[in-house]
Amino acid sequence: MNNNAAVHPVFFVSDRTGITAENLGHALLTQFTSIAFQHHSLPFIDSEEKAKLAADSINQVAENSENQPLVFSTLIDEDYRKIIAETDAYIIDFFDTFIKPLEVELCTASSHAQGLSHGISNEVVYMSRMDAINFALKNDDGVSTKEYNDADVIMIGVSRSGKTPTCLYLAMQFGLRAANYPLTESDMEHGTLPEILHPYREKLFGLMINAERLRMIREIRRQNSEYASMAQCQKETRLIKLLFEQENISRIDSSHISVEEIATTIIQRMRIRRPPIY
Amino acid sequence: MNNNAAVHPVFFVSDRTGITAENLGHALLTQFTSIAFQHHSLPFIDSEEKAKLAADSINQVAENSENQPLVFSTLIDEDYRKIIAETDAYIIDFFDTFIKPLEVELCTASSHAQGLSHGISNEVVYMSRMDAINFALKNDDGVSTKEYNDADVIMIGVSRSGKTPTCLYLAMQFGLRAANYPLTESDMEHGTLPEILHPYREKLFGLMINAERLRMIREIRRQNSEYASMAQCQKETRLIKLLFEQENISRIDSSHISVEEIATTIIQRMRIRRPPIY
Repeated sequence: MNNNAAVHPVFFVSDRTGITAENLGHALLTQFTSIAFQHHSLPFIDSEEKAKLAADSINQVAENSENQPLVFSTLIDEDYRKIIAETDAYIIDFFDTFIKPLEVELCTASSHAQGLSHGISNEVVYMSRMDAINFALKNDDGVSTKEYNDADVIMIGVSRSGKTPTCLYLAMQFGLRAANYPLTESDMEHGTLPEILHPYREKLFGLMINAERLRMIREIRRQNSEYASMAQCQKETRLIKLLFEQENISRIDSSHISVEEIATTIIQRMRIRRPPIY
Repeated sequence: MNNNAAVHPVFFVSDRTGITAENLGHALLTQFTSIAFQHHSLPFIDSEEKAKLAADSINQVAENSENQPLVFSTLIDEDYRKIIAETDAYIIDFFDTFIKPLEVELCTASSHAQGLSHGISNEVVYMSRMDAINFALKNDDGVSTKEYNDADVIMIGVSRSGKTPTCLYLAMQFGLRAANYPLTESDMEHGTLPEILHPYREKLFGLMINAERLRMIREIRRQNSEYASMAQCQKETRLIKLLFEQENISRIDSSHISVEEIATTIIQRMRIRRPPIY
């Protein structure tokens, strides 16, 4: 018996990275929690030869699986799409479904050009994302505060509350300039913002986290340390909550939400103008 | 006359981050290069009240625009979807389009749960992404080589060829452990890999870049420097190409492709196993 017989094979087929196909497919498949899917990515299908090889892969898996494969496709070229359409799979063709109705609605023919999404279609936007990544790295963890005037947001919170990944995500995804400043225990005991942050009050955003979650994350980093102890985590999370309240800082509890959710919330709450995704 | 009369308004409506809606919409809209779209994000539409406010925003823009707004929606709740469906907009309803056919194909009802995509639906996968970001930061720019045994890939290339953003993207998007090591001019003149990289030959991936592009990127960073001069950029790009050829290193030219494309290529070429996106 084939090992893969029990799972449901899924293919993501694209002429470029396949990120859109996979995002789309994943958003739909997470709605079917009882089924185990086996993912196969087939990016860069940009020639007839590659399309035929992709079709062969799909058919081969179809032959060895109890379940008919699902195919999520963002292929734009009509010839390659036809080759994939003839496989023994259930096809969800993204462009076929939406592009024609959109052409009618917009009274415009689509360009049928590949690689406009997730490529460097807009050099200015792309370079601003790369710059923002440099900015996040240079202004991580309070290393430097000299560029805070250029920051879109300055994150504050205790160590390991998620500041750095959030800053990097804001930069990578949206090209926003995000710095982060680690409040020390003495800042927190003081109960007021350190003086260096006073001029940037409008840019501050606080990350809270519950003590149990913080303990778990710190424990991975420094096992059995004072830093990761429940007492220390309780103390810091309590003090920082008080400080945020006292100083009236916009804030969110990061304990059970993802960097994507934190980043989206910051942009919404601080009304930050940002370019479209990619 | 309203300022926005000439552009085509687009809304991305979601009960969570809206990232899927925006990715989906953006991939489609980039096919209409002659139209100027004005983007509006409406994330976290997770109550009837918020759905009604979102509908009001859409209708208000519709009233003030020459063009009927487009709405890309990934709303899952049927009641909220109905509220949005009644606006004066052209709706592209992602779940409505695909989820019912998928239910039939998979012989399973969907869970209709919100926030399964781009949230922390899988704690293990999410934590591995956060760990991978830490790994990329700790192993950036040759700062440390102690953890190279744990790396999925070690990027090599000249300074400013895109190593760091690629490593961070591999971590953020895929949870892969990517380190990067900057080859010095003396490494390159030697024409062989530095000894420290010898044990990890199978993990190495080279980034090439053309001299003109490298000059432009370095110029932004250090204007009028020797480092950014055309002569220096030509020398380094020529030497590193020779070294990659000599040592038979898997490589790609990063001059005109995005970090998403570089990352996807690395995964494909090095046959790295990775979890599904998010």
